[in-house]
Amino acid sequence: MPRPPEYLRKVQDFVRRELIGSEELLDSLAPAPLPLYGRFADTGLANWWLPKRFGGMELSLEESVQIVSELSYGDAGAAFTLFIPVLTTSMVGWYGSEELQERYLGAMAADNSFCATLGSEHEAGSELARMSTVVRREGDELVLSGQKAFSTNTDFGRFLVVVARVEGAASEYLAVVVPRDTPGVVVDKRWDVVGLRSSATYQVSLNEVRVPAGNALKGNGLRILEVGLNASRILIATTALGIARRARDLCMDYAKAKVVKGAPLVNNPVFAAKLGQFEMQIDVMANQCLAAAREYDAIAAGANAGAEFLRQGTLKSAVTTKMFCGQVGWEVLSAASEMFGGVGFTSEALIGKLLRDVRYVSIVEGGDDVLRELVFSRYVVPVSKRR
Amino acid sequence: MPRPPEYLRKVQDFVRRELIGSEELLDSLAPAPLPLYGRFADTGLANWWLPKRFGGMELSLEESVQIVSELSYGDAGAAFTLFIPVLTTSMVGWYGSEELQERYLGAMAADNSFCATLGSEHEAGSELARMSTVVRREGDELVLSGQKAFSTNTDFGRFLVVVARVEGAASEYLAVVVPRDTPGVVVDKRWDVVGLRSSATYQVSLNEVRVPAGNALKGNGLRILEVGLNASRILIATTALGIARRARDLCMDYAKAKVVKGAPLVNNPVFAAKLGQFEMQIDVMANQCLAAAREYDAIAAGANAGAEFLRQGTLKSAVTTKMFCGQVGWEVLSAASEMFGGVGFTSEALIGKLLRDVRYVSIVEGGDDVLRELVFSRYVVPVSKRR
Amino acid sequence: MPRPPEYLRKVQDFVRRELIGSEELLDSLAPAPLPLYGRFADTGLANWWLPKRFGGMELSLEESVQIVSELSYGDAGAAFTLFIPVLTTSMVGWYGSEELQERYLGAMAADNSFCATLGSEHEAGSELARMSTVVRREGDELVLSGQKAFSTNTDFGRFLVVVARVEGAASEYLAVVVPRDTPGVVVDKRWDVVGLRSSATYQVSLNEVRVPAGNALKGNGLRILEVGLNASRILIATTALGIARRARDLCMDYAKAKVVKGAPLVNNPVFAAKLGQFEMQIDVMANQCLAAAREYDAIAAGANAGAEFLRQGTLKSAVTTKMFCGQVGWEVLSAASEMFGGVGFTSEALIGKLLRDVRYVSIVEGGDDVLRELVFSRYVVPVSKRR
Amino acid sequence: MPRPPEYLRKVQDFVRRELIGSEELLDSLAPAPLPLYGRFADTGLANWWLPKRFGGMELSLEESVQIVSELSYGDAGAAFTLFIPVLTTSMVGWYGSEELQERYLGAMAADNSFCATLGSEHEAGSELARMSTVVRREGDELVLSGQKAFSTNTDFGRFLVVVARVEGAASEYLAVVVPRDTPGVVVDKRWDVVGLRSSATYQVSLNEVRVPAGNALKGNGLRILEVGLNASRILIATTALGIARRARDLCMDYAKAKVVKGAPLVNNPVFAAKLGQFEMQIDVMANQCLAAAREYDAIAAGANAGAEFLRQGTLKSAVTTKMFCGQVGWEVLSAASEMFGGVGFTSEALIGKLLRDVRYVSIVEGGDDVLRELVFSRYVVPVSKRR
Repeated sequence: MPRPPEYLRKVQDFVRRELIGSEELLDSLAPAPLPLYGRFADTGLANWWLPKRFGGMELSLEESVQIVSELSYGDAGAAFTLFIPVLTTSMVGWYGSEELQERYLGAMAADNSFCATLGSEHEAGSELARMSTVVRREGDELVLSGQKAFSTNTDFGRFLVVVARVEGAASEYLAVVVPRDTPGVVVDKRWDVVGLRSSATYQVSLNEVRVPAGNALKGNGLRILEVGLNASRILIATTALGIARRARDLCMDYAKAKVVKGAPLVNNPVFAAKLGQFEMQIDVMANQCLAAAREYDAIAAGANAGAEFLRQGTLKSAVTTKMFCGQVGWEVLSAASEMFGGVGFTSEALIGKLLRDVRYVSIVEGGDDVLRELVFSRYVVPVSKRR
Repeated sequence: MPRPPEYLRKVQDFVRRELIGSEELLDSLAPAPLPLYGRFADTGLANWWLPKRFGGMELSLEESVQIVSELSYGDAGAAFTLFIPVLTTSMVGWYGSEELQERYLGAMAADNSFCATLGSEHEAGSELARMSTVVRREGDELVLSGQKAFSTNTDFGRFLVVVARVEGAASEYLAVVVPRDTPGVVVDKRWDVVGLRSSATYQVSLNEVRVPAGNALKGNGLRILEVGLNASRILIATTALGIARRARDLCMDYAKAKVVKGAPLVNNPVFAAKLGQFEMQIDVMANQCLAAAREYDAIAAGANAGAEFLRQGTLKSAVTTKMFCGQVGWEVLSAASEMFGGVGFTSEALIGKLLRDVRYVSIVEGGDDVLRELVFSRYVVPVSKRR
Repeated sequence: MPRPPEYLRKVQDFVRRELIGSEELLDSLAPAPLPLYGRFADTGLANWWLPKRFGGMELSLEESVQIVSELSYGDAGAAFTLFIPVLTTSMVGWYGSEELQERYLGAMAADNSFCATLGSEHEAGSELARMSTVVRREGDELVLSGQKAFSTNTDFGRFLVVVARVEGAASEYLAVVVPRDTPGVVVDKRWDVVGLRSSATYQVSLNEVRVPAGNALKGNGLRILEVGLNASRILIATTALGIARRARDLCMDYAKAKVVKGAPLVNNPVFAAKLGQFEMQIDVMANQCLAAAREYDAIAAGANAGAEFLRQGTLKSAVTTKMFCGQVGWEVLSAASEMFGGVGFTSEALIGKLLRDVRYVSIVEGGDDVLRELVFSRYVVPVSKRR
Repeated sequence: MPRPPEYLRKVQDFVRRELIGSEELLDSLAPAPLPLYGRFADTGLANWWLPKRFGGMELSLEESVQIVSELSYGDAGAAFTLFIPVLTTSMVGWYGSEELQERYLGAMAADNSFCATLGSEHEAGSELARMSTVVRREGDELVLSGQKAFSTNTDFGRFLVVVARVEGAASEYLAVVVPRDTPGVVVDKRWDVVGLRSSATYQVSLNEVRVPAGNALKGNGLRILEVGLNASRILIATTALGIARRARDLCMDYAKAKVVKGAPLVNNPVFAAKLGQFEMQIDVMANQCLAAAREYDAIAAGANAGAEFLRQGTLKSAVTTKMFCGQVGWEVLSAASEMFGGVGFTSEALIGKLLRDVRYVSIVEGGDDVLRELVFSRYVVPVSKRR
């Protein structure tokens, strides 16, 4: 095994120091953001993907998969909190004016702050086109109004990107940069989530929120959001990988200590069969996340990356990766959650937390029903798009 | 549909009045026993299976399946709390002296109290034969010492049945009736369980606990426990049925209100396909629970029921029913837990509780690995026992 | 184990004598009907369900489940050939005039002959209402024209029941008794089927086929067909049970002879786990088939059975049983088909035949997609129909 | 989509010309080798992986994955026949003397002939170490005796590699090159296989077969075989990918033509959901095959590739890929085989052939039970080998 690169060793250190063993705190829904996010920033890795020209490390999505696999091995909520700003920053990076990029991404790189995207709404659900949040132009300003259902890191983010329907236009949408402290941005509540409880997701209202017209990103807001979701979907999928790896190791630790029929459980062939299957599933999840990330990185490295992403919109591989890892992660955790006897049904076992954590992968940023239909209509019906 | 019998209507009333809508309390791990258990007793149904000669209603296991399906539709923890005494009372009923039966079952029928079985231990796990709790004879007394890992209702039960290894004997076991207030019976802690949180399960220590020698049940203690588990396993399986029925109805309620592509989700063919599959699974679970219960009732109606049960020990149908309902219940809840969009991942949706609740079915009273092996060795290897 | 009733012992004898060991012939698509069907008639059991008043044995559907489980343990194609006439005779029995019943059912009981139903068509598929076969009245005669895709036993059946749309009427259908030798009944071809190859299924054309008007059954032809399918669906489901039982026994035989790591495979815990799971699945399949059959028998025993069946149409339990046994039978055979090493992939192993045979359960008389939708719309949407 | 490289276009041409539409022949178990294998050689692609220094094309395993995906889209048996020699040639290539390589690989490149490996035996099954075929040294010769159960292409191969236990040595094994026409090499029979029927697999006896001592490959014969299986397992996995792609396209073709409820089935949301899931599964299979192939190619490109392969033996990725594609291929075909209505259960539909073909992936070169245990013991127990 080659020695991992420095950034990865830093992440592994952080995981060992701050996440492993702190699960009770991480699972407690303590006030956000947890102090440990500050200590992650101290490692110099906060927002590791930001471009070098703004002072970032500019790590690739393939490298991000490595990072997120490690982080979510420790705690998927921490991983999600730390990587989900990529959804927002990639929209600003590809489609914001040079000035917007400098001001917002530069500041983030400088102070290791967070940002958030406000896309989903209760009524519209997965049908973003039905969103009721509207934006209208008044002079040099854009005015936004509406309510957004689920937005992570919003309360303590430095800025937001809001996707809104253009008032009076049939199917025009904008994605608009909104500083968090703009009057009218109201955090209604933090959600009491089932898993991923070290992250903080909010319901947010926008009451006549005014920003300069230049804060709009260039292009159709919905399509821009599709582009942003490519990176985040791949990394959400990767958290299932990290959780599955952790579950495997918990099972092994348990099985070494547990005696069944006069021998450690680890010697039991039925146990071995399950763990052999887990390792296979982990291997495939890892390869799939990496393949999707490389495909993303290849487009990102192109001359007209922003335009190319806009042309392709939702990448098939981003969607298949989230579907697959969500499904297989659930399979692994379903099986693992039966392996710890009665204690496994108590809060003294960690497996219950992992099971709750992994559930979100198949729910956020598009449930499988929605994504299956999307894959079908965009990538099966057109013969040339089939693999 | 014929009108349900009176006992069932009382149960349905209770469920509507005390369980539906009280999920936050039921899921809160509030001090046990919850007051609502007293109000269940007020319906006259407490310990509904106790023999008429002791003042009970003597409902059959088939009728118990109907009751438990309804109760667990409301709350599986409440169902479990209310039926699990059957494990204890059936051991006393089949294998206790006339005096023991009168004193303990009679009292229970009179005051609607609880009782508990102390069987499982941490080290031994599913290998009960390895238990370290011991019993020795001293004059006219039996003295018990050891620690039991998981025992439900113990703290507030009127009496316990403790299964223990006979000190100094290679493979002799006793099942002994112990009044709850006997000196030396110490409740170490209540478990913080992942689901079923309206029930209360304890770790209990026995420190030189002395009872009259006549408190021992007649027969091998392990075999007696096997017999007792037949009824409880079938009813545990039935809770998966109740939970699945509730999940189905939650999905339907949601789908009637939720609009997708301009029509209620309930009109969506993919949704319909899932619910059609759920109904099939529910139908099969119900038939399996009833078939196993009828087989149990047929033995119980025999002249030498106790002896016949002892001869057969663990009934195949009790085990297959728990395995099946645990597996299919998990399938249904796994699918259902993806159907509520983002809100389904928050505590505002009930589905997360149901998912946590149903998990226990495949864990308590023997995990599937243990039960598959048992079915194989006892019911597949002997050709005549195969179905 | 109580001694099985005489009819069942006769069936078991027949299976041992004529089916077990004759798989090569049974799988060969040899000319139909195979001589062994004559030898089944010699046992006196042919068409065992026919009413006593016509000289039949009038065995119940519950008894039929026992018979079909045994027959399909030997060969599912033989079982299907022998029980599928029940679809036809139950339609004639419930909805034919007294004269039709006497003439056709009486003759069948006398000469142990076959009959067939002509329902499904290529274009219409599961949407029977779209059928293109038409019937018109001319004087005292009915004239039928069209083509039917799949009909079993037709070529050598004594009579057929044809379901046809009434010409010129929007949604009127008739079910009409047609003697096999009526001019215009043409067997186009016998299908080369993937499994169940000891049965014979035909494509049949009806060219201006004339029968007396009294040959029409009373009631809507499509609804009558729904009623007929109740019994056949439950028995089709039962063949999956028989095939699964056979697969289990093949696995056990193999595992006793096969040495792995110095011990018989039958001692291997991973193998044991699979077989324990099979036995559970078999147990549940059996209980489900019996439960559905008892429900059917209960209706059949009622005073106005025909009318009650017509009122209920497709019984939920008939559909859920076919869905369940088809799915679980496939699971069992999928797993079993991996257990025989390389030889299992050759024609020297029987497992390949069983896998092909079991496939039909989820296909004939309604695929799962169609049945899920039916269960949903008829038995989930109406709250009172839910279980 | 970039234009595929020339070798791939040639393969696609061949598939269209020789395989698509010839399924009846391909499935007929016609005498081997089929003439179409000669026509494949005419494209110049036979044994495409042979080293350039022997006149081969030296395509990588990654390129081989592309080729095999296309070939098995047409017919998995043809694919298997054409790529399985890589198992043999890679053993000779890494561990044969320069002379052996030149003589045997050079000849193969020159005349496009086949070769075969004789490894597996009936009794030993997956426990190769228990093989009973023995080899002894007599002067300058090696003498081989025994029987090998399954060997593909043997009858018409130019040479064989036989793995045998060294007589008198406890656990020493040799892999020995044996010209096909050596006296004593007797083909006992060709297996009548369930699927993959355009390939030819034989049972072969070795009766005192004598070859020069220099025909032995360098190293432990079992370990050499492990190395050889890396490439073939990855390509066997790839056939599941090709079969799944074909099944997807068959479903789409059917669904465009089939009308359900007044609209093409392709518009049906339940159908769309299944196809979206298929495409996801196909995407992941493809990425996994490619990832495993790249890992293999990276080792093969190293300075001491043979030694490094010997050190690593069975690669985790080769095993996980075969396990995964076997399992998912079966899932896809199981689902697809229900989609064609009644015709799908007849020989007129191709889907039955695809289902039979894909079954072998989980059976040959190690069943999943064996491979799960191998993955567990080699890649989960050692903490550093976990992913």
